[in-house]
Amino acid sequence: MTNGWTIDHVAIVVADLEATIATYERTLGFAQLYRETIVEQGVEAVGIAAGDSVIELLRPLDEASPIVRFRGDALTKMHHIAYRVRDLRAELERLKAAGVRLIDETPRAGAHGNSIAFLHPKSTGGVLTELCERQARDS
Amino acid sequence: MTNGWTIDHVAIVVADLEATIATYERTLGFAQLYRETIVEQGVEAVGIAAGDSVIELLRPLDEASPIVRFRGDALTKMHHIAYRVRDLRAELERLKAAGVRLIDETPRAGAHGNSIAFLHPKSTGGVLTELCERQARDS
Repeated sequence: MTNGWTIDHVAIVVADLEATIATYERTLGFAQLYRETIVEQGVEAVGIAAGDSVIELLRPLDEASPIVRFRGDALTKMHHIAYRVRDLRAELERLKAAGVRLIDETPRAGAHGNSIAFLHPKSTGGVLTELCERQARDS
Repeated sequence: MTNGWTIDHVAIVVADLEATIATYERTLGFAQLYRETIVEQGVEAVGIAAGDSVIELLRPLDEASPIVRFRGDALTKMHHIAYRVRDLRAELERLKAAGVRLIDETPRAGAHGNSIAFLHPKSTGGVLTELCERQARDS
């Protein structure tokens, strides 16, 4: 029996959001799914549909944002992988009991109406990992 | 009309393959899908199933491998995103005509029986991008 997690999105921090959107849409041929400013996380997020998963382009709202330091001199840098789970609270309880370090002990609001929680990269082999549970929405 | 690409896999270069496999399997609860040595690419690749997509853990066979430099001091680092396409040759022709710089002009063999081709990150907004076409296989 496996965890049943699927890839919800892969988040990429970008230096030039408009140019990157143009590359994904016009050059590669993807369609944009959402564009949101998430003040709490200090980012503007643009979701690019890739089947049932999403490539999420992140632009920091503020040059003091930790994701600016994370990106460094790179034009873009992959930031985290988010897995879609059925019951986020139950997963967090299971993982906490297994000794996984949680950044978010309880779900909070993410982009595109998701409930999300981050796991600490020290417990996930080094990659920042997010879990998210989809809430009812039109798209 | 969109390109129809879905996420085939996200590749992560790891420093300690066995420890990372244990984290994904025992702690997070994923199942291993394949484990292969790809001599041509100088890596051992372990595929972890995430729904219909895969997290591919990469271990360089040789310390002189470019992916060792890519990883640098990090324990793990996300290396590329691979999209599954229906007709790889047709996609490469379309992208080449659109001015996209191709690392592989024609398909070659990848992990898990896929035909693959890499696009140059300069043409994809900075993230190394692979396209792959699934070949017939049991799993």
